[in-house]
Amino acid sequence: MRTSRLEAFSDGVLAIIITIMVLELKAPHGADLAALKPLLPVFLSYVLSFIYIGIYWNNHHHLLKAAHRVDGTILWANLHLLFWLSLLPFATGWTGENHFTRLPLAVYGAVLLCAAIAYKILQHLIVRRSGVDARVAASLSRDWKGRLSPLLYACGTGASLWLPWLGGCVYVLVALMWLIPDPRIERVVGEVEHHAHH
Amino acid sequence: MRTSRLEAFSDGVLAIIITIMVLELKAPHGADLAALKPLLPVFLSYVLSFIYIGIYWNNHHHLLKAAHRVDGTILWANLHLLFWLSLLPFATGWTGENHFTRLPLAVYGAVLLCAAIAYKILQHLIVRRSGVDARVAASLSRDWKGRLSPLLYACGTGASLWLPWLGGCVYVLVALMWLIPDPRIERVVGEVEHHAHH
Amino acid sequence: MRTSRLEAFSDGVLAIIITIMVLELKAPHGADLAALKPLLPVFLSYVLSFIYIGIYWNNHHHLLKAAHRVDGTILWANLHLLFWLSLLPFATGWTGENHFTRLPLAVYGAVLLCAAIAYKILQHLIVRRSGVDARVAASLSRDWKGRLSPLLYACGTGASLWLPWLGGCVYVLVALMWLIPDPRIERVVGEVEHHAHH
Amino acid sequence: MRTSRLEAFSDGVLAIIITIMVLELKAPHGADLAALKPLLPVFLSYVLSFIYIGIYWNNHHHLLKAAHRVDGTILWANLHLLFWLSLLPFATGWTGENHFTRLPLAVYGAVLLCAAIAYKILQHLIVRRSGVDARVAASLSRDWKGRLSPLLYACGTGASLWLPWLGGCVYVLVALMWLIPDPRIERVVGEVEHHAHH
Repeated sequence: MRTSRLEAFSDGVLAIIITIMVLELKAPHGADLAALKPLLPVFLSYVLSFIYIGIYWNNHHHLLKAAHRVDGTILWANLHLLFWLSLLPFATGWTGENHFTRLPLAVYGAVLLCAAIAYKILQHLIVRRSGVDARVAASLSRDWKGRLSPLLYACGTGASLWLPWLGGCVYVLVALMWLIPDPRIERVVGEVEHHAHH
Repeated sequence: MRTSRLEAFSDGVLAIIITIMVLELKAPHGADLAALKPLLPVFLSYVLSFIYIGIYWNNHHHLLKAAHRVDGTILWANLHLLFWLSLLPFATGWTGENHFTRLPLAVYGAVLLCAAIAYKILQHLIVRRSGVDARVAASLSRDWKGRLSPLLYACGTGASLWLPWLGGCVYVLVALMWLIPDPRIERVVGEVEHHAHH
Repeated sequence: MRTSRLEAFSDGVLAIIITIMVLELKAPHGADLAALKPLLPVFLSYVLSFIYIGIYWNNHHHLLKAAHRVDGTILWANLHLLFWLSLLPFATGWTGENHFTRLPLAVYGAVLLCAAIAYKILQHLIVRRSGVDARVAASLSRDWKGRLSPLLYACGTGASLWLPWLGGCVYVLVALMWLIPDPRIERVVGEVEHHAHH
Repeated sequence: MRTSRLEAFSDGVLAIIITIMVLELKAPHGADLAALKPLLPVFLSYVLSFIYIGIYWNNHHHLLKAAHRVDGTILWANLHLLFWLSLLPFATGWTGENHFTRLPLAVYGAVLLCAAIAYKILQHLIVRRSGVDARVAASLSRDWKGRLSPLLYACGTGASLWLPWLGGCVYVLVALMWLIPDPRIERVVGEVEHHAHH
């Protein structure tokens, strides 16, 4: 089974998730700055979640480029990842509406943690079952960001229940860590493609 | 007519259905555990419906891979299936908001029953009109899950009106039955593809 | 410019239009048959609009298969069609909520009329600028359904303001007229494709 | 990395943005002309935003056709553009609901300004990193519309705070400026493609 339809379906779901989060930004009734002010935390949580979905789309894109074929197990591992990501709009809206209080921020972190674990499972299954190139597999096994992220999400979730601002900082930090591109994977994938064409 | 645009449109509709169901999980006003509690049945019905749409996407994916070409009748049979699946978000939201009471659970089962019948019609038309490989056709004709499901949905719908929890159990059972991958179809499709490439 | 990305974008918009209409079917608070009853007109208008979007998707699919390439004018003619179709969820919701009263039904017909005119413009531009096969052009020029529909929509819109039930009947009639597949276009397109492969 | 999945994801997001804006057009409770009247400004702002998303889709389509390959930086520049465009439904709804008053119109202009800057960044990165044809690069460097638009959006944003109707006129003017097709880019791209096939 080729990866194209899996990519198309995932793209569709991620595009919808990234877009329906903006529905939480409800147009206020007033037309002055005071009416916009309560929207600020909702807007900030939207920005963070937009970046997270962007990161997942980016990584998903790279991961599936490495996969040669998919089977039923990989399809379900992919749906498992999409399930947790589909809860991000809810967590984003709840966090934003409650001005980054304890429990909403902890739930936000828990959703990110579950999505990170689901991503690790998907990556593991693709490396095992999909016959990726040895160098891509080696590159993914040196994936310190993917290993560190679940730990940081767990820390952020715990910290949120105690000091909400600390939990929020952890989530922003992980997003920044991922925003900086990883030249190694791109280089290795590039080399593999280069060789495949020669 | 090739199947690619039919797949793309179906993927789009299924991706939207699976994602708008999460809009029923409305962010509560409070920020404590008590505020989350009424969301639990909504969340559970979301999980079940997510799995069902995932199952339909998976099976639809396999079925259309077997089809060589589609005509106007198959396009409408496909839209017929998408119509019933598009009612799942409504049935999910109604069931979840009413804590799995009689009528909502029966409506949920009736929507699943109609979708299952629509899927059978689509499968029948593809086998008849689309010129699938004989082995795929034989494999589909031994499809006990596809034959059993409508019966179980009908039982679940009836049971829901009498003992709601029993109806709910039947729907969970059918979902689990489908989650376990069917190695036969995958193997046969794999063989056919293998031969096609040689 | 090839037609593939135009098809993908149109498929996306049509998939979203066909799905967000179901959001008008809001889960009622009660859990008995009396709670479902006010949803009946909303459901019926949803069924009709679902069929209409299905018809447009089907025809759009056939039309773009005939086009060899698209230019900026065709892109905008296509967006013009999508604009009017995007108003169908509004017209559907308004009609359904007001139990098929005069003005909502007339607005519903007016939206269908504008969409039909936009489709005629798109078809005209594709035949003129896109270099379709002569037989497809001839087949499209004999397109009595496409010529009759705007007239019927205009009649239905007028009738709705006078006898709402008559207007509704006209809209149902036009939908049925399109549901019956047109063997001629399919046959001609099939022949053209057949020749292209030999 | 090829451009196809970037296009598919962008198409998905743009298709959803263009469609969810219509959700602001809420079906009124009444069924007479008086009930439709308050929807007029919402409708007009919807029309303008629909045209703007259409313009962005058109230009994005042309720009990515010129790109041969994309890297991580271009992926993020594209997400940056989609982020600002995803705020257009909010700005549209707020402007329409407040009948084109000062601050909403200025926010609308500010979102358009940010999107225009994001588009310029994306175009710059694609020309620099993606190895576009020299004639396409030259054509893009003569892109007076792309240079003029941010200035006009900034003027419109400022004017909105002072004379709302003037700001609104500027936004309509820029949209009209883009609606008129630019024959040069299309011709150059056409020539490049023509040569590539010979």
